[in-house]
Amino acid sequence: MPISVSTDTETLARQHQNTLTKPAGSLGRLEDIACWFAARQGQVIPKRLQAHICIFAADHGVASEGVSAFPSAVTAEMVKNFVRGGAAINVLAKEHQASLSIVDVGVQTDLQSLEGLIHANIQKGTENLLHQAAMSIEQQWQAIEIGRQQAREAIAQGANLLIAGDMGIANTTASACIICELAHADPQDVVGRGTGVSTDMYQHKLAVVTQALERTALLQAQDVLHELGGFEIAAMTGFYLEAAESKVPMLIDGFISTAAALAAWTINPRVVAWMIASHVSEEKGHALALETLGLEPLLNMGMRLGEGSGAALCLPILQSAITLHAQMATFQSAGVSNCDD
Amino acid sequence: MPISVSTDTETLARQHQNTLTKPAGSLGRLEDIACWFAARQGQVIPKRLQAHICIFAADHGVASEGVSAFPSAVTAEMVKNFVRGGAAINVLAKEHQASLSIVDVGVQTDLQSLEGLIHANIQKGTENLLHQAAMSIEQQWQAIEIGRQQAREAIAQGANLLIAGDMGIANTTASACIICELAHADPQDVVGRGTGVSTDMYQHKLAVVTQALERTALLQAQDVLHELGGFEIAAMTGFYLEAAESKVPMLIDGFISTAAALAAWTINPRVVAWMIASHVSEEKGHALALETLGLEPLLNMGMRLGEGSGAALCLPILQSAITLHAQMATFQSAGVSNCDD
Repeated sequence: MPISVSTDTETLARQHQNTLTKPAGSLGRLEDIACWFAARQGQVIPKRLQAHICIFAADHGVASEGVSAFPSAVTAEMVKNFVRGGAAINVLAKEHQASLSIVDVGVQTDLQSLEGLIHANIQKGTENLLHQAAMSIEQQWQAIEIGRQQAREAIAQGANLLIAGDMGIANTTASACIICELAHADPQDVVGRGTGVSTDMYQHKLAVVTQALERTALLQAQDVLHELGGFEIAAMTGFYLEAAESKVPMLIDGFISTAAALAAWTINPRVVAWMIASHVSEEKGHALALETLGLEPLLNMGMRLGEGSGAALCLPILQSAITLHAQMATFQSAGVSNCDD
Repeated sequence: MPISVSTDTETLARQHQNTLTKPAGSLGRLEDIACWFAARQGQVIPKRLQAHICIFAADHGVASEGVSAFPSAVTAEMVKNFVRGGAAINVLAKEHQASLSIVDVGVQTDLQSLEGLIHANIQKGTENLLHQAAMSIEQQWQAIEIGRQQAREAIAQGANLLIAGDMGIANTTASACIICELAHADPQDVVGRGTGVSTDMYQHKLAVVTQALERTALLQAQDVLHELGGFEIAAMTGFYLEAAESKVPMLIDGFISTAAALAAWTINPRVVAWMIASHVSEEKGHALALETLGLEPLLNMGMRLGEGSGAALCLPILQSAITLHAQMATFQSAGVSNCDD
């Protein structure tokens, strides 16, 4: 599948940057971002961003091991909060003019009657990954297709930047397992405190991840997602794959999003060329996972919320980069002397 | 003068943060920012930000030493560009709904006939700080008063966040001198490449700063600004002093702004409680200067433009922090279980 980036357009965009009334390079990463979008939109002056955020929600069998500070019921409660507009991601999406959709891809609580939610529940939570595969291979591909479908719809409605968000109590445990496997890392370097577990609970969580990885020892990369993942993580994986194959850039959020990005990269390594990392979260192992993908985060705000919140916070920075690129005067038009005049 | 911060309000704001539907602390620095504004606005839910950016422009006698990649004429050319709306700071101010004013506090070129510019020219550029005091003590206080006046006017018009920007060819040389003196640092650790000087020019710039500091050896802190500063830097100093004394927060930009912040801190150490550092610039010594003030920058985007551009880029992050604080649902209102329920 042809998902290549236009390096010619990137070169022209870089030349345009050097005509703008500022010392060359003085806008730092903002210049790189503008040229990055130029190459991916295939036009020297990229269009204004129209971001769509899609939150995938699901529960995790491994929550029964007591790895989270919050009960599984919170997944559904937060889904209701998203639909009513009260969560952090709602506030950020509104503040930064992004559209938002919420998908139930495997929440434990029955949410069939909840309006404003996209109903695509595969099963009421995954199996417990400590003891068995989290989902079947068929369920994994079903979740991936749900994610792909969401990306297709967002793109059809005009989105030119996609953000996946997550909601699922215990999903830092599943994500830690995925990152350990796909980034070839030690649980000690990856498992974090998630929503904020105590030190005792953290030791227990670390033991659960370690034992799950012993269960799946010698796993092939292609089996990591269904063995250790979650329905929302698999859906996010599909969302990313579809975005890249449709040549639409995506902005990666935190720990869960990056686990899904690693899973997508395992399926198609070229997806990474369409990804920008928004922030590095407080969750241990996130920096390491980003490094594996070769992505350098824009922000470090000590966030660890998920929901796509770190990515949404980054939107005005990306937009600023593009607007500067599009609207600044040139040395010639403004009659300003350049340094080599 | 009473410029104290309301720690009671900060405590109440922190309590409010902990009722919002997210794990406590999971918004990281965004939570700190919201509480910081609460304490300074004196209300648990701070008002939406209304930022005013004031750019102070002036020329520098030391430019004749060949310390910049650009000729002095560019100061006036860029002032015209600001007035016409073509510079980076114009684009960012518009994108993030900040008001903007431009003040000629000492540009070499005669700009009397330029409309849209605030005319407060003290002298057509400073003296050459390599050989003599950049300005007289009287001129220093005159520049400080010009800055104070701009802050007063912005506050009177409703601004609740002030940003000072700079324009002045060779002002990284003056700022490096100030930072070396006030942060007790070595020129090697402070002098940077400014707008982008060559390696040879950089060595020359370093020698100029070192010699200027030899000339002013044993200088008292209170004499640093008029001996080694610039008219725009002194005006920014006054702008900061007035903001703090009026209990209005300010957002500090890059290298030049931080030199002015150090000068303001020398005059009144309590100004720092009203300052947020927006970004750490590529200019060598900026991180060190921020550290001296105890300020931790929010962004690191490799910028080195000045004009207030790094601060303007930060505005949506500050606003996001406040909007989240003001608009998120609480655990109670949303019916979400908290971790200790």
